[in-house]
Parts: sequence; C-alpha cells; structure tokens
Amino acid sequence: MANSDERDTDVPVETREEVARAIRRSLAKHGYAALTTKKVGAESEKSESTLFYHYETKDDLIAVFLRSSIGWLSEQLETLDIDDPVEQLTTACELLLVDPDDEHMRAINIAVMELLSHAPYNETLREPLLEYEHHVLDTLADILRDGIEQGVFHAVDPDATAAFILSTTDGSTGCVLALEMDDTGEMIRTRLFEYIESELLVQNTQ
Amino acid sequence: MANSDERDTDVPVETREEVARAIRRSLAKHGYAALTTKKVGAESEKSESTLFYHYETKDDLIAVFLRSSIGWLSEQLETLDIDDPVEQLTTACELLLVDPDDEHMRAINIAVMELLSHAPYNETLREPLLEYEHHVLDTLADILRDGIEQGVFHAVDPDATAAFILSTTDGSTGCVLALEMDDTGEMIRTRLFEYIESELLVQNTQ
Repeated sequence: MANSDERDTDVPVETREEVARAIRRSLAKHGYAALTTKKVGAESEKSESTLFYHYETKDDLIAVFLRSSIGWLSEQLETLDIDDPVEQLTTACELLLVDPDDEHMRAINIAVMELLSHAPYNETLREPLLEYEHHVLDTLADILRDGIEQGVFHAVDPDATAAFILSTTDGSTGCVLALEMDDTGEMIRTRLFEYIESELLVQNTQ
Repeated sequence: MANSDERDTDVPVETREEVARAIRRSLAKHGYAALTTKKVGAESEKSESTLFYHYETKDDLIAVFLRSSIGWLSEQLETLDIDDPVEQLTTACELLLVDPDDEHMRAINIAVMELLSHAPYNETLREPLLEYEHHVLDTLADILRDGIEQGVFHAVDPDATAAFILSTTDGSTGCVLALEMDDTGEMIRTRLFEYIESELLVQNTQ
C-alpha cells in the first residue's frame, strides 16, 4: 500500500480523481483489452495530455482507478449508516453481488474480472487488486467480528467466512454478469442468504 | 449448441483435437490478450496453415478448445468411476477449486476467466462458454439429485445448490489463482466442505 501511494504523492488529488473517473467510465464502455489512451481522454473534461502528464502507461492510470476504489465497500456502508451487523452483512452481500440490471456496475465488475486475469503477468495491476481484495475481506471480517461480539452471529472464523462469502459473490461475475444466466443470479443470491441465516445467525427461539 | 457444432461438421475430428490441444497449451502460456496465431502454431506439431485451414480467426480456434472442454467435469468423474454421490460431489468441488500448485490448470482457469470477461462483447466465445457453464451446473445438479434420491443429501433445490457451489469455486479463480492469496484458498475450501457437511449431508446419528 505504501509503495503505490508513494508513486502518487506528487500528483494533485484533483488530477487523481479525474483520472479515476475517466478510467471508470472508459473501462465500463470498452473493457481493458480495447482501452486506448485516446478513449480514456474522451471520457474526461481535461485534455489527454493533462491526464497523461503524470503517468506513463494505460496500466498506471488503471492503477489510479483501482486504488481509488479500494475502500468503496466500507465507504458505501458508512454512507448508509447501518448499525446492525446483520443488516451490514446482507447489504454488503447485495453490493458485492451487483444488480445485473445496473449496466454501469455490471460493466465495471466484468472489467475488473478482466484485470484480475492479467494480474499474474502484470505487477502494476496486481498490487492494487490485491489491496482491493484484502480490503473487502477485512470489511466483511470486521462486520462478522462485531456481530459475534454482539451475540448476533455464531462464533465462526471471521476471516474464513469472509473469504467464502467473497468467493461466492466474485464467482457470480462470470455466470451472472458476463454470461447473463439470470436465473442463476437469483439462485446464488437466495442460497447465500439462506447460508447466512442457517450458518451464521443466532436464532432467538429458545 | 447446434450452431457451433454445425460450423465444425466438416472439420476432421483429429484436426479439431489438435486445435484444442494447441490452444490449451498456448492459452496457458500466454493468456488470451497476448495470444497470436503464430503462438498457437508454435504449440502444435501440425503447421500453422493446417490449423488455420478450417478456421478464420483466433476466436474460432478458441471456440473449438472451449467446445472440447464442455464435458470435462463429467468425463473426469466417469474416469474416476465413483459411485457414491457424496464422494462424487466432494471430488467435483476439488476439481473445480483447482490445485493452485498445478501451474497448467491454474493458468488455464485464469485464461478462461479472461475469456469470460470478453463474453458480453464476443458471440464466438459466449456461446461455448455458456454451454460450458451449463454443463458444469447440470453435472453438479445431477449428483445432488442422485444423492437426494438415495437419501444421503437433504431435499435441497439441486439447481440452486449447484449454482451456489459453482459460484463459490469460480470465484476462487481471482483471489486464489490469479492473486495467489493462498491462505484464502484453504479457507474457501474448508468452508465449502463444511457447508456441504452441515447443509447437504443427511447425518446418520439418530
């Protein structure tokens, strides 16, 4: 995390935010493979040369976008201002599963899956993707830990349960979002919430 | 399914098998974006012109590989000749989770994730990928149905449970195989088998 932030230190915050916005829009429209610096420039009010003044390659710009997205899940949850860990967890799952009818979020998630497939061969993308996945895992594990402390979740392993949930939601990107096997999306969602209810929730019935 | 098969009818089986082998090897080495017809040719004993005689584009060749892979899970299970549905299900999960130390399988699964990210924009890849995912879902659902009939699994919805399991195993491709978050792989595996035990297996204890 320190490394990638250091590289950016000299770049004005405003420019980084504009880069992240332009990359987000152009990735959603074109995906990673077809993305060119021209297409990134077309999505910004700033000139292409301004965007590229501080960065050398397309991947450097994508890394800016990825780093700007690292905290999105915890930020979304903070904005929603939910106190109850059960509601926090179900909301986080809904956000991670992505609404297939939300074209922009669908396209961005498919593009991030494409970036993940390049991670083994591309250090510039790998580092922020690793940070991103770790942050989501930590956010889920923290919710679980809070819920266990408050007695609303069973004393499961928070990290392993977070990994299991993230794997399930990440895995829906291929079959639900990319291949649009829509009934599959509803089945995965239902099963995931049934899992949370039967395996995690402490039932107040005795 | 008919469409894609019809296109291949005139091509000798031996040639199709050779195309599938060459694509499998070259996809594992280079991924999809960096794959060129030259690189495909380099992985085959047949000449580049022989491989490309029947097919026009790189994607046509990849579709041949994907169609040749559609039945791999059920074929693997048949080869292993396992009768017990419980053992069939756990073996299927092990196969779908992929051993991260198996470099070839790891690379192929990451490449298929890359192909999935192109599916929305690429009809040639989408059709065989859809068939592939449906076949895996059907294989898992059939195992569950058999187990329910034999009384070893609870009467869960076989299709929804298959979708949930496939989503979980597909989702490990990003964090475990591409990003090599190894401890995450072990956590997902453990949690998935715990899920099978507590939610699916009929316990013989009463």
